[in-house]
Amino acid sequence: MTKTVSKKKLYLLQHGLELVSQIGLTSVTLGNLAEKASVSKSGLFAHFGSKEELQIALLDHSAKLATEVVVEPTLKEPEGLPRLRALIQNWFGWPSRAELPGGCPVAAALFELDDVENPVKEKVAALNDEWQAFITQLVEDARRLGHLDAKLDVKQFVWDLFGIYLVHHVFQRFERDPDVNVRAVRAIDTLINLAKPQ
Amino acid sequence: MTKTVSKKKLYLLQHGLELVSQIGLTSVTLGNLAEKASVSKSGLFAHFGSKEELQIALLDHSAKLATEVVVEPTLKEPEGLPRLRALIQNWFGWPSRAELPGGCPVAAALFELDDVENPVKEKVAALNDEWQAFITQLVEDARRLGHLDAKLDVKQFVWDLFGIYLVHHVFQRFERDPDVNVRAVRAIDTLINLAKPQ
Repeated sequence: MTKTVSKKKLYLLQHGLELVSQIGLTSVTLGNLAEKASVSKSGLFAHFGSKEELQIALLDHSAKLATEVVVEPTLKEPEGLPRLRALIQNWFGWPSRAELPGGCPVAAALFELDDVENPVKEKVAALNDEWQAFITQLVEDARRLGHLDAKLDVKQFVWDLFGIYLVHHVFQRFERDPDVNVRAVRAIDTLINLAKPQ
Repeated sequence: MTKTVSKKKLYLLQHGLELVSQIGLTSVTLGNLAEKASVSKSGLFAHFGSKEELQIALLDHSAKLATEVVVEPTLKEPEGLPRLRALIQNWFGWPSRAELPGGCPVAAALFELDDVENPVKEKVAALNDEWQAFITQLVEDARRLGHLDAKLDVKQFVWDLFGIYLVHHVFQRFERDPDVNVRAVRAIDTLINLAKPQ
């Protein structure tokens, strides 16, 4: 994920993510990206061999942004509950800090792509699995260090947290609800308090 | 929502919802529905004047199905917590009981349409508001009857419940996780137990 990309490719990926935010990942094609970025379609072929390759590159680029604005600052915090809390803080609302006007492309793709079987879906599933594994590890660490209850159902905790992320995403982006952050903080505090050693 | 539709229109709506499940609401057009349903495009114009009109009709038809499989059986249960529990039971997983292979079109549209402003989005927002108002009413009733705590933050409860619905939707449909129902029941039980009179 730390592979450097050329300036030209970066320019295309940024325009591609703007398109994703406007029309959704599955509707992005070489044709509409060429138009959006004011380049020739043949110029795009040098970077992306097909629509699917382009969509996968856009997902990879989002993941790179998430690594920068969510994962890296999180890993600077002390292990255990402080790091888990930092993760949640950095994760919720990360798309606006990563200048992704359309919200999290992976979250949207989880709803867009649930009925198809293709390499783009496989990519979304892989990124989602990777993400869940990362959160699971931080929860496990907090449990191991005694910051969370030894008997905590870690999978359930991660599942519940993911639900809070999704409803926060919807209410922030679709409903433009001004109270989303307050609601998310309350839900997360309840979840963490219930998970603390009894 | 109880307006009867002609057999022909119903046939078109059913095929339209199959398309929604395959390619997403925003990608459904008069052209691809004509192909899917093996009718002429001009034949479709008799029923739907434009792509947006078609998409709105598909949302209305989903809402009609939700009324049949979720709302009507729920309203037969005794008021208060039993009715709220029945709602949750009927709501989660309702798309498969309504023969909607693509899951809940409104839930998907909340992610698909978050960055556009058009009549289809307005329709999704209206249906979502109507749905939240319905749940809120049942939670309020349960509180009024003393089945839930008098000091309960009803908006937060509905928000938390919606998060559980979304994560259940994703894990059932995208991840095909066999444990989704167990996880949802646990999360809902925790939510309701915390909301009971202290």
